[in-house]
Amino acid sequence: MNSDTHIVSSFDRDLESVQAMIMKMGGLVEEALSNAARAMETRDDELAQQVRENDRAIDTLEEQVNAECARVIALRSPIAADLRTVLTVIKISASLERSGDFAKNLAKRSTVLSQMAPIPGAAIAIRRMAKTVELLLKDALDAYIQRDAALAAEVRQRDAEVDQMYNALFREFLTHMMEDPRNITACMHLHFIAKNIERVGDHATTIAEQVIYLVTGSMPEEGRIKGDETSYIGVE
Amino acid sequence: MNSDTHIVSSFDRDLESVQAMIMKMGGLVEEALSNAARAMETRDDELAQQVRENDRAIDTLEEQVNAECARVIALRSPIAADLRTVLTVIKISASLERSGDFAKNLAKRSTVLSQMAPIPGAAIAIRRMAKTVELLLKDALDAYIQRDAALAAEVRQRDAEVDQMYNALFREFLTHMMEDPRNITACMHLHFIAKNIERVGDHATTIAEQVIYLVTGSMPEEGRIKGDETSYIGVE
Repeated sequence: MNSDTHIVSSFDRDLESVQAMIMKMGGLVEEALSNAARAMETRDDELAQQVRENDRAIDTLEEQVNAECARVIALRSPIAADLRTVLTVIKISASLERSGDFAKNLAKRSTVLSQMAPIPGAAIAIRRMAKTVELLLKDALDAYIQRDAALAAEVRQRDAEVDQMYNALFREFLTHMMEDPRNITACMHLHFIAKNIERVGDHATTIAEQVIYLVTGSMPEEGRIKGDETSYIGVE
Repeated sequence: MNSDTHIVSSFDRDLESVQAMIMKMGGLVEEALSNAARAMETRDDELAQQVRENDRAIDTLEEQVNAECARVIALRSPIAADLRTVLTVIKISASLERSGDFAKNLAKRSTVLSQMAPIPGAAIAIRRMAKTVELLLKDALDAYIQRDAALAAEVRQRDAEVDQMYNALFREFLTHMMEDPRNITACMHLHFIAKNIERVGDHATTIAEQVIYLVTGSMPEEGRIKGDETSYIGVE
């Protein structure tokens, strides 16, 4: 019993540095999303540039997480729950890295949008959507740290709100494009921005599902209907 | 020496079933892409529906790969190159699963597009792009099976062609939208289809990079400039 406890806590210690990297990655991704959306709203090209440069730090952290996880596996030969934890960490860091890429792409497009006539209400709507996704990501990582399957399940449900926001924006941008062809290029960028933020929401959901897998040992059932319905939008 | 060979081949045998699953996944993803693009060109809703249904088989294979890799790690406690192989397999199957999702989305949008006036030349261009990406994916997986770093490096370079095709299509669809607002909804779907195929190309590149990592022990340098320049496209 005592030796069991010792092994577990020793393994947890081995993973401490990885957990710290994951939390740091999460913080950087939330910041990148927030700053990219703010740069877009305030047309601040310097801030957008900064977001793009900071993405490298997120990429580097993912590489470090992968290297450290490989080191821990080689060192400890974990099995069962411990092994599951390490494999989960690798997947979570991949989701965070992809989310960072999406924030970087938002920042790129924000620089282009700042040279075009603004689409009324777009920047505020995008920022609200980004804010919702930031919180989702934060809660998904909190669920991971606290091994809180209930919070993870809540994150999965809340991603539906993001999908609804996206569906509404998709229709709105389409309307702007049809009303005035001069809006088309700007709205194309806004479409891709909204889609990318929606994808970060999907990654928060993926992280939440990993947490549920970690805690319960099995992946959640397909409880939530996929909310991006825009693939089906037909002739208006 | 003899015992070394024995250990290696025993580990390879453990991975045989996983390798078979990866090849099966790759075949299913190539088929899904090909059929989705064909369904779009021939406006064949039944074929599109079939692509959507077949995606579940790809998802199931990814779960099986993950489970089998965890089993092999627990059983063999692999280190160094063997461990690297297992972790690579997990990442490759994740890339294939995502690629399958993109093919499924193409099939969904193809069903919607079949109800709209066709955009001249679009279906053929999309199918050509899909074909190029299928070959890229095939070569990336061949590089993996043969541990061929040179072929993997070639895949990375060839992904630039896909990016060029995407950039050209992006501009073309934008022109159609501006010329006639009745094209806007169809072109929006075409934009997302082209982007999704381009993303499958990125996954082929990711697989190629994993192969290079597997063979050489380090990730390739940033040798290739990111080719999707459409984030920067400004006022026409």
